[in-house]
Amino acid sequence: MATSEARKRGRPSGVSDTRDRILASARKLFAHNAAANISVRAVAADAGVDPALVHHYFGTKEKLFAEAVDVPVDPGALLAVLHAAPIDELGRALATVILGIWESELGFRLKATLRSAIAGDELPMFGNFLRSVVFADIATRVDDPPGSGIIRVEFAASQILGVIVARHVMALQPFASLPLERVVDVLAPTLQRYLTGAVPGLPKD
Amino acid sequence: MATSEARKRGRPSGVSDTRDRILASARKLFAHNAAANISVRAVAADAGVDPALVHHYFGTKEKLFAEAVDVPVDPGALLAVLHAAPIDELGRALATVILGIWESELGFRLKATLRSAIAGDELPMFGNFLRSVVFADIATRVDDPPGSGIIRVEFAASQILGVIVARHVMALQPFASLPLERVVDVLAPTLQRYLTGAVPGLPKD
Repeated sequence: MATSEARKRGRPSGVSDTRDRILASARKLFAHNAAANISVRAVAADAGVDPALVHHYFGTKEKLFAEAVDVPVDPGALLAVLHAAPIDELGRALATVILGIWESELGFRLKATLRSAIAGDELPMFGNFLRSVVFADIATRVDDPPGSGIIRVEFAASQILGVIVARHVMALQPFASLPLERVVDVLAPTLQRYLTGAVPGLPKD
Repeated sequence: MATSEARKRGRPSGVSDTRDRILASARKLFAHNAAANISVRAVAADAGVDPALVHHYFGTKEKLFAEAVDVPVDPGALLAVLHAAPIDELGRALATVILGIWESELGFRLKATLRSAIAGDELPMFGNFLRSVVFADIATRVDDPPGSGIIRVEFAASQILGVIVARHVMALQPFASLPLERVVDVLAPTLQRYLTGAVPGLPKD
């Protein structure tokens, strides 16, 4: 199929066409399904390519999902950093890692991604990415009492999301100018309580 | 001027033209100035109408600002409810009142306003409205140590904003389906700490 694509657009190679077609299939399948329910093989079949090509162009399924929602971060690398944090410092680690990415040179691209996700039709896929790739992994570590993990993580996510919108999207002053370390200091106890504290209203709590 | 407007659009009366012109002037002036620095008289002068007409169509300056940013809530009425709450219950009152509006029939319009504000060019005016109308009023009540009030309120706002985006814009499940009372129970201690607690990193703290 690479040759027909190349012929159609007059390119010497079908590489970027194949890549685009894999991404389009990923967007279609991830739009309404959790990551766990979509295999690389299914994406490859939809795109009409060999599964090895998907791995070749995108690496892991999670990286493919991240590219599909235009998040310029490898979720596996991010989750590995969080895995290395002791559970009673997970709140601080979460704030430091996630907000740190927004302060980095990637922040500009993330802001564009978040703004267009909030404004556009791809919001369900963006939420699906957060939930099934990022949240699900952390939730297994804080699932006490059983069943509360995802809600704990989503409360923590709501606080981090709000800081991102207030600082990086709305640029509310003076909040947006506070040094990151001070924001992390204020947020860490909040996030830790959501993740591992006694929180009224959680299942069986 | 009403007659020329009416002639131009073929309407029997210039009422809605005058109203639109006042709104356009308000949007222009509120885009880059805090509410405290813009008088009803200044808006009227820019629109070329008598100040009495501004009051006639919009009531208070704050209600005019709210209409300019398309927020279907009277900020004066909202702030009056918060004023009635004891200071040590301000966190719970804030979550109950603000999130309660989003659960009401006004939520749909607010969602449209927030999504277009985040996506579009009117975001600075929207932030300006929050800061100079809503936050400034609450900040005077929690300004301890002096100078910390606005930061305290903006931390609280970041948490509420994050819940709004997660529940009402992104519709993250299962978070979006939690009953409001449970969300308020979880948020109240967080907000109270931000507003009146010992928070590291605040000015003079």
